[in-house]
Amino acid sequence: MENVDSVTARVDMTKYRPYAAKVKRFDIESGSFIAVLNEREARENGIFTGDRVVISTRGNKKIVIVDLSEEVVERGEIGLFAETSSELKLQDGDLVEIRQVGVPSSISIIHRKMDGIAMSNEEVDTVISEMMQNRLSDVELASWVAGMYIRGLDTEETVALTKAIVKSGDTLDLGKKPVVDKHCAGGVAGNRTTMVLVPIIAAAGLYIPKTSSRAISSASGTADTMEVLAPVEFSIEEMRRIVLKTHGCMVWGGAINLAAADDKLIRIRHTLSLDPRGVLLASILAKKVSVGAQYVVIDIPAGMGTKFEDMASARSLARDFLTIGSRLKLDIECLITDGTDPVGQRIGSALECQDVLNVLQNQAPRDLLDKSCQLAGALLEKCGTVRKGRGYAAALDLIKNGKAYAKMKEIIAEQGGNPNVKISDIPVGKYTHVVEAEASGRVRLVDNRNVSRIARAAGAPHDKGAGLILHCEQGDKVNEGDLLFEVVAESEAKLDIAVKMIEDMNPIKLQNIVLGKMD
Amino acid sequence: MENVDSVTARVDMTKYRPYAAKVKRFDIESGSFIAVLNEREARENGIFTGDRVVISTRGNKKIVIVDLSEEVVERGEIGLFAETSSELKLQDGDLVEIRQVGVPSSISIIHRKMDGIAMSNEEVDTVISEMMQNRLSDVELASWVAGMYIRGLDTEETVALTKAIVKSGDTLDLGKKPVVDKHCAGGVAGNRTTMVLVPIIAAAGLYIPKTSSRAISSASGTADTMEVLAPVEFSIEEMRRIVLKTHGCMVWGGAINLAAADDKLIRIRHTLSLDPRGVLLASILAKKVSVGAQYVVIDIPAGMGTKFEDMASARSLARDFLTIGSRLKLDIECLITDGTDPVGQRIGSALECQDVLNVLQNQAPRDLLDKSCQLAGALLEKCGTVRKGRGYAAALDLIKNGKAYAKMKEIIAEQGGNPNVKISDIPVGKYTHVVEAEASGRVRLVDNRNVSRIARAAGAPHDKGAGLILHCEQGDKVNEGDLLFEVVAESEAKLDIAVKMIEDMNPIKLQNIVLGKMD
Repeated sequence: MENVDSVTARVDMTKYRPYAAKVKRFDIESGSFIAVLNEREARENGIFTGDRVVISTRGNKKIVIVDLSEEVVERGEIGLFAETSSELKLQDGDLVEIRQVGVPSSISIIHRKMDGIAMSNEEVDTVISEMMQNRLSDVELASWVAGMYIRGLDTEETVALTKAIVKSGDTLDLGKKPVVDKHCAGGVAGNRTTMVLVPIIAAAGLYIPKTSSRAISSASGTADTMEVLAPVEFSIEEMRRIVLKTHGCMVWGGAINLAAADDKLIRIRHTLSLDPRGVLLASILAKKVSVGAQYVVIDIPAGMGTKFEDMASARSLARDFLTIGSRLKLDIECLITDGTDPVGQRIGSALECQDVLNVLQNQAPRDLLDKSCQLAGALLEKCGTVRKGRGYAAALDLIKNGKAYAKMKEIIAEQGGNPNVKISDIPVGKYTHVVEAEASGRVRLVDNRNVSRIARAAGAPHDKGAGLILHCEQGDKVNEGDLLFEVVAESEAKLDIAVKMIEDMNPIKLQNIVLGKMD
Repeated sequence: MENVDSVTARVDMTKYRPYAAKVKRFDIESGSFIAVLNEREARENGIFTGDRVVISTRGNKKIVIVDLSEEVVERGEIGLFAETSSELKLQDGDLVEIRQVGVPSSISIIHRKMDGIAMSNEEVDTVISEMMQNRLSDVELASWVAGMYIRGLDTEETVALTKAIVKSGDTLDLGKKPVVDKHCAGGVAGNRTTMVLVPIIAAAGLYIPKTSSRAISSASGTADTMEVLAPVEFSIEEMRRIVLKTHGCMVWGGAINLAAADDKLIRIRHTLSLDPRGVLLASILAKKVSVGAQYVVIDIPAGMGTKFEDMASARSLARDFLTIGSRLKLDIECLITDGTDPVGQRIGSALECQDVLNVLQNQAPRDLLDKSCQLAGALLEKCGTVRKGRGYAAALDLIKNGKAYAKMKEIIAEQGGNPNVKISDIPVGKYTHVVEAEASGRVRLVDNRNVSRIARAAGAPHDKGAGLILHCEQGDKVNEGDLLFEVVAESEAKLDIAVKMIEDMNPIKLQNIVLGKMD
């Protein structure tokens, strides 16, 4: 029996053997650049599944990853999916030359990383750039991520990875200062601080080109929520124009090619829920560097039910942010916040907008107002806009004197929304279900994860008007029959699904005085 | 920004949300069970790339891995590749129910392995069985292999993995004893010992149900070489019949479903040339257990240019084979052999057959005869056929008295070949190129890898008649103009390619007495 052979042997050998084949198009997008070769013919040319070949035609070239089939393509044929055939402008029957190319340099770098050898700057650059050229397969990328997860990344590697991710995408150069940014390490329902903080910061005269994500597992991402008020999909040039005019924006990061390598890495990490610390740091900080930020505030929610259940692990992440940030010339402040409870009363895109507009008009919910001003205040102090210790008050002033709200209207208008929208104009679902306390007691917990699950069952994030309204928070005393929360949906069917879930997943837990009874 | 979410959250949530979609067939084999869902619709249902969904229709169910696209499939559609639509007998427009299924248990097992926690027997079983159900993506399998590579496998894990691989495929139960097997840890050109050893062993009355592989990077695998003499693709029932009748066979393992999980693992390992020790051991030994072997001889070629350049690493592998073997009730003998030189004079399927038939008729090449008798002798001693120290002589006797050759004819006939084939009947390529010594000197090295490369450039393994004939071996003294080797090809074009390679990759290196000259 022959063993898995060395990569080198295969490459040298086939350098000498280009061959020609006729294109057979598959009008399907495969999500990556793949060519299907006839299995036996490929083997005779020393080409195996997962190898890379370069396809040449009329001076155009493209490196693709090989898949083999004995049935789909005959000898003399090459099957191409839509991405490749359209990029090379190939029709059925066109003749192309197929030539195996050297194994990407990344392979040996990944190998060494798995063996515990730290990567140099150049090596990190190589892997990211070969990944961006679609030269690395899922198997290789997964091995790399696994290697980084198990072996860890040191400071040098993390800095190199951040820089390489920045280089992989576009960057924003406003030509103005100071540029600030904000990040939340996630996991708390509601928590729309960005939409309060951005207008405060912009009103204070700083620049904040904010990109946000859509919901992955939550009821609404900042981009989903902002979209209720204005469009959020812009090119980087449009984004620049908006920020230069209003000092801030709230756009969807997915529409902009910032830190492009990060999207590819996230897909791999997501599959296994792998979060190598160094990759996480690089992923977050690369986005901040890409928009040209000098000052960054990072919200790290900690406590039961969050990613950081104890202060020690939250502090450790904060320290890492500071270490890597200073190497990247980012002036960072980390705020470890109480993440046990949702922030704000309303969960779901439209409902959260109501909270945000209320807060900007100096109304409840108090926790959202408070947290937003804490975060904004930290940035105001960092930039020297106000002196140390005066940040929170200065932020609150900008709410109270209406400047933040006026700025919000400006940004909404600039992004193409209606600046004069009233809270009562925002459409929410008309199907509601009320949940009352079955006994008296104190609210022990409002579970973030179950809040998100029920909101999603009710239709969020797709149904902008779906979600939850919380009528109590941790610590409240409630009596039997008191209103705990409402579920809101745009259709009766989805409301029913959400209501069914409450039995198993009631997000509001009351403290039981009597834990058991015997008679 | 929201972080990569927890797998659990996604699953619980969507348990409640099956949805229906119309089938859109793609008549392409994708190599695995994949469904393409509309990206936005999937996201609304909490389904992401790489998730698994179960597709149900008229009582049939199939678990597939999800791919997402915004363009290929509309809302309300599900794109199915050929494998899935044909297995579920689905036509375009058929309605199916899509429901996310629990994340495979393997995910957390793989995670823990990456964290350095050894796998239990049950956990190894779970990963192998979910892999066999196509429930694990490449990313997950690659992470598992990377985890096993970096963390290593202990004896318990390796034994569990071997047993799980055995369970994943068919097994052969001859109902006879003793059953023996042989393995070569690979990398030496020529080296067709199996085709000499099997007839010796069978002639001695032992049972040897031998499966072999085809060439990966070499000029010919045992299955390719045997195929010159007789068909090698049989079902396990046919294999059983042949072995019960003749005591031996030489068939292609790829046609038989032994140790099925191994093929899937090899694909992942191959991509990165990852050879985690425990996986290598399990992969090899599972095949031996699957054919019911009790006694196994393992040839570990060592020396310059092989996988084991020093004796220490060869010995370490041998020790591991013995340790794991004893746990599997396999009585193993490892022979560490000199692998610096090719074994036999002829390289390439048809040419190697000539060597084999010569040796079976007690002719040269001596090294092939010698090595085959050493390996066969070890098995004869293990089984108690002859007493300790008498194995080699007994094996040689079976060559000398013609019994091994007679047995070979029997096996050829039983596999459907012509038992009376003469060496001169075996067709070899008619295009040859002769390489002569450019100076006098002693042969320092015959490089296995370059021998294979040139033979492959000349057409091997596809062209059965292509290859190399060596006219000298390590240590020979040659004079300027002496014949070193010949290249043989079936076409002039391929001969030319091979000849061009010789400049860079002359496999025969002469010792230089004068290393430099100045005047």
